[in-house]
Amino acid sequence: MTRWMAHPMSVMVEFSMSPLDKGASVGDAVAKVVDFIDRSGVPYRLNPMGTVIEGTWDECFGLVKQCYALMAEESGRITITMKVDVRAGEDGRLDTKVRSVEERVGRKLRT
Amino acid sequence: MTRWMAHPMSVMVEFSMSPLDKGASVGDAVAKVVDFIDRSGVPYRLNPMGTVIEGTWDECFGLVKQCYALMAEESGRITITMKVDVRAGEDGRLDTKVRSVEERVGRKLRT
Amino acid sequence: MTRWMAHPMSVMVEFSMSPLDKGASVGDAVAKVVDFIDRSGVPYRLNPMGTVIEGTWDECFGLVKQCYALMAEESGRITITMKVDVRAGEDGRLDTKVRSVEERVGRKLRT
Amino acid sequence: MTRWMAHPMSVMVEFSMSPLDKGASVGDAVAKVVDFIDRSGVPYRLNPMGTVIEGTWDECFGLVKQCYALMAEESGRITITMKVDVRAGEDGRLDTKVRSVEERVGRKLRT
Repeated sequence: MTRWMAHPMSVMVEFSMSPLDKGASVGDAVAKVVDFIDRSGVPYRLNPMGTVIEGTWDECFGLVKQCYALMAEESGRITITMKVDVRAGEDGRLDTKVRSVEERVGRKLRT
Repeated sequence: MTRWMAHPMSVMVEFSMSPLDKGASVGDAVAKVVDFIDRSGVPYRLNPMGTVIEGTWDECFGLVKQCYALMAEESGRITITMKVDVRAGEDGRLDTKVRSVEERVGRKLRT
Repeated sequence: MTRWMAHPMSVMVEFSMSPLDKGASVGDAVAKVVDFIDRSGVPYRLNPMGTVIEGTWDECFGLVKQCYALMAEESGRITITMKVDVRAGEDGRLDTKVRSVEERVGRKLRT
Repeated sequence: MTRWMAHPMSVMVEFSMSPLDKGASVGDAVAKVVDFIDRSGVPYRLNPMGTVIEGTWDECFGLVKQCYALMAEESGRITITMKVDVRAGEDGRLDTKVRSVEERVGRKLRT
């Protein structure tokens, strides 16, 4: 058994997904995906450029695949960017990461 | 004169920046950069995986360069990811993009 | 059955993966992952900033997960960037995309 | 004078740029940008998902801005992804990074 299986890690994934064949206004396609994320029960935070989710590797990548399948029902050309941050022995980082920066800076920041 | 110069576009840049030579805890280096962004006056929103700023092309990329210079004072190996979204004839999208998704979905979302 | 299942799409994934807790020289960790990709049989192209693979969604994301598991044996903090480009009804794009640009430009380019 | 100014660093930038308002086939817009990069004299390598350039900070970001201005002549909605890798005291990494991986792995790889 690998160390990775024995010691679960906190996985955070930020991603955004756009159809390339729907013109400049991709809001409807994006809203459909965000609605799905919100109903999925997976912890997330929405920002102006993407969505950050947190879970196990399989929870995060399973959700991204479902979002993709949803968008692929209506689009034949999809572009996705993802950034993944894995850290051993931590969780709840959707909240703690921002708070930790605020503590170091010593004041509230714009979130 | 190019169309780009005649018709300013709203530029949003999400970016994150990490030293690779400081070990697993990069919080101090990140806090120093976020503190600088907060004092810069450039509109921004902090999220668990990065910072989104909005302005002209030169405002956004000038700020990223200043952040980089700050981190380079203490690190010889830096990695940066950036995502840029440019849209003609709009601004204030740090707030309107999230609100627009909420309106389409029909309820408040986690931000 | 969704359109996505009925009509397979060509998935290209560019990714790069670094340990954050191993210092500025991440070459050994990267080489171990690239060696694994090369032996996997999945079509890929290596470039100075990452690796592009092509296959089905599950082939691509399965390989990324295996690479991650390999790196996680030795690192507790890993950062990954991924860019995904999905296009219906095409494959072999590892070669055709560059060639198509060369044809449009009308000369050989540096690859 | 900051350490950053006194000790130049090698900057590598991988980037890709797409219009969102031109439909699924963005090849013409991409070719125009790559043609410009090829004529610019800045060292680069093209891959199936983007272009990697190397130079100083200002050379790299100046070129990205020119590419953007070119695309903005014809598009009002542009999305750019960038990954930046800065390393003190090195250059020529467009070639040495791939070769260094090949040396560690002990055989030629697909590039």
